Amino acid sequence: MSQARLSDQVYAGIVEIIKAEALEVGARLPSEAGLAEMFGVSRAIVREALVRLAADGITEARRGAGSFVKSRPSDRLAAFMPLAELPTTLGSYEVRFVLEAEAARLAAIRRTAVEMAHVEEGLALLRAALLSSAPAHAEDMELHRRIAKATGNPAFLLVFDALRSDIERIMRAGVDISRSRPPEVIATMLGEHEVIVDAIRAQDPEGAALAMRWHLWEGRRRLMP
Amino acid sequence: MSQARLSDQVYAGIVEIIKAEALEVGARLPSEAGLAEMFGVSRAIVREALVRLAADGITEARRGAGSFVKSRPSDRLAAFMPLAELPTTLGSYEVRFVLEAEAARLAAIRRTAVEMAHVEEGLALLRAALLSSAPAHAEDMELHRRIAKATGNPAFLLVFDALRSDIERIMRAGVDISRSRPPEVIATMLGEHEVIVDAIRAQDPEGAALAMRWHLWEGRRRLMP
Amino acid sequence: MSQARLSDQVYAGIVEIIKAEALEVGARLPSEAGLAEMFGVSRAIVREALVRLAADGITEARRGAGSFVKSRPSDRLAAFMPLAELPTTLGSYEVRFVLEAEAARLAAIRRTAVEMAHVEEGLALLRAALLSSAPAHAEDMELHRRIAKATGNPAFLLVFDALRSDIERIMRAGVDISRSRPPEVIATMLGEHEVIVDAIRAQDPEGAALAMRWHLWEGRRRLMP
Amino acid sequence: MSQARLSDQVYAGIVEIIKAEALEVGARLPSEAGLAEMFGVSRAIVREALVRLAADGITEARRGAGSFVKSRPSDRLAAFMPLAELPTTLGSYEVRFVLEAEAARLAAIRRTAVEMAHVEEGLALLRAALLSSAPAHAEDMELHRRIAKATGNPAFLLVFDALRSDIERIMRAGVDISRSRPPEVIATMLGEHEVIVDAIRAQDPEGAALAMRWHLWEGRRRLMP
Repeated sequence: MSQARLSDQVYAGIVEIIKAEALEVGARLPSEAGLAEMFGVSRAIVREALVRLAADGITEARRGAGSFVKSRPSDRLAAFMPLAELPTTLGSYEVRFVLEAEAARLAAIRRTAVEMAHVEEGLALLRAALLSSAPAHAEDMELHRRIAKATGNPAFLLVFDALRSDIERIMRAGVDISRSRPPEVIATMLGEHEVIVDAIRAQDPEGAALAMRWHLWEGRRRLMP
Repeated sequence: MSQARLSDQVYAGIVEIIKAEALEVGARLPSEAGLAEMFGVSRAIVREALVRLAADGITEARRGAGSFVKSRPSDRLAAFMPLAELPTTLGSYEVRFVLEAEAARLAAIRRTAVEMAHVEEGLALLRAALLSSAPAHAEDMELHRRIAKATGNPAFLLVFDALRSDIERIMRAGVDISRSRPPEVIATMLGEHEVIVDAIRAQDPEGAALAMRWHLWEGRRRLMP
Repeated sequence: MSQARLSDQVYAGIVEIIKAEALEVGARLPSEAGLAEMFGVSRAIVREALVRLAADGITEARRGAGSFVKSRPSDRLAAFMPLAELPTTLGSYEVRFVLEAEAARLAAIRRTAVEMAHVEEGLALLRAALLSSAPAHAEDMELHRRIAKATGNPAFLLVFDALRSDIERIMRAGVDISRSRPPEVIATMLGEHEVIVDAIRAQDPEGAALAMRWHLWEGRRRLMP
Repeated sequence: MSQARLSDQVYAGIVEIIKAEALEVGARLPSEAGLAEMFGVSRAIVREALVRLAADGITEARRGAGSFVKSRPSDRLAAFMPLAELPTTLGSYEVRFVLEAEAARLAAIRRTAVEMAHVEEGLALLRAALLSSAPAHAEDMELHRRIAKATGNPAFLLVFDALRSDIERIMRAGVDISRSRPPEVIATMLGEHEVIVDAIRAQDPEGAALAMRWHLWEGRRRLMP
């Protein structure tokens, strides 16, 4: 089994510990040595998993003092996504923050009338799906993809598509979680997309980048309450 | 032939015109309609090519007045890279500016001792290649890849590898161009990489991001003097 | 009268035209020459005012085609702030976007326990003021100032205080406008501040910067619906 | 004496210790308690000074392990600037990174022909001063100020002028240090300003912001080798 796969298992195992032992925010995790023994792996593998848990905002390292719980993945998340998939799906957010914010910025500067119509149509499809009982993650994905396309630079699409399966997995979970939530959350998700599209239409590059980054940030927060 | 391929051909064709007719910076390009007729394509295809030329800093659109030459691709670049490959290679820079700056920032925050040693070794290999007579683009690529890896987030590697063939093509051209240049340029390229690695070692996230962005910006400028 | 004062008068005069003639979003303004004659000033003064109106998101220049209305200042804003004060107050936002986002970022990295308690207390005071019938702009200002102080770098306070009278004027208007609005708006304003303080407490620098920038962006949007 | 003044004295005192005891990069400073006793102040004052030393890149805090030397202020700096002035002068850089980068970005978007000529003239005056034997800090300051003015937003000037005495002090030291250095450094300083002005002329907002940030970063590095 590859080393990457091992650290994914340890990552999921630590999330499991946080949930099963109901560790509160601020609680201290077992030591690196303890975790290595628990999972039967080297300390280097444990360290790799801890770095990624910190990157995803689940734990926090304090120099010389160990790792602590920073936020607990939501129970809903666990219900909709196998724990083993958590590390790759959360990790994709960190790339999307910069990648899609830049795509929204450039789309606002360069979108042609044709691309703008394409984005507007994407928003209309997402709105219809969110407001009906249909699952909406395909439409959500498609709107983000159309914004990447409106940059006029195929490299954004290339990279977006490389992340596609990770993004799809998390959108599916995010949308499913949201759909079992009250209508206000649906309205919020729709409103966030509308602000992005408004800024691209108004050719406001900084507004578009900020609105996209905020939307993704809030999306990640909705997974980890 | 796909539409993407057509707009690539028009892109390369316009660069050809700029070179063959020795259009100076500030010179006006033929109109959209004129270019469409010249290349036997629709105006939508011409517009797509013009948006990407502007994105790559080669032309500049002025509302109601047409497109103008903003900077001329270097003759050396044309000698080392088929014109038809220019659009995809230059386009990849725009993604790299945000992607690799963020990777450098996160690497400075999170790199473990093992990852740091891996990055240092990558720099040593690049230094040796640049200072000897060997081609250095494989080492250049490898150093950038190790920095992406030091983020601890595999999504950065996934995306970097998706751009890999584009980056390789441009690095090969960039390095080849540089190797036919005076030793000062070699020293500058090496120095830029050293500043990035210094900042990651010093755990200075903002410095690492800035140094990476500056390096990529200067790299693109070296292709378009 | 100084040139700066003249361009302020022209700025306010153009806003007056937009309001009095009920120019819709997208409507074309009179030409530079026409405005110069109307206000009895040089075209250079008119151009200066137009650049600032565009900076504030009220108008938009299209090359070769003139200036167009991009968003109309709210009627409520005009009721709470003399038009002549509009240019300086809106202009301060543009500095605050970068200045206070950076202050929030650094505060999240460096805040000592003492500074954190100081910020928390500032939030409690703002919450109490917003939820009671008291005017809240002094508390709003004070919370932002305490975040600037929590950077540990006095230069942030120095610069914040230089903008203080401009910020106070706009906060007073913004808070007054908001207070004549439904309770949801009050809750939103409070919520935005809570997210900023949460991120500083959690030592999440990127989250703090993003939340501050979003708060200021939304604040400006509340003035220009 | 005000608390701010006390922490400035402690800041300067710690720099004195680093120099007098020739502490190398990586060396551990005395403990907070030790420093408090040494300077006869409270630990809160010592902590305030340490936070600012870390902000300025001179020391580095490691949780639970104390503070360590990260870079040593240059001997030349000490020769040209009283140690007591060091904290305020270095602190101003952190504001300038975001403030002047944003000013350069906006200047590239909005500069009128008149403002551009004003900036070009500022560059010519700086070039003449740097290449002759005259002191050049007034010209350096003036060029930065003209770029802030070219934003068309007086709030940038207001804030720049609030930092003016701090910036002047550091420029004087920086320029003096540089003037006792080889001609390559003079050429580098001039070249950095030229890249900024080039990007503003070419209406390249991201390039202008990046070049300004790089220039300021390098300027701070020239003070702390």
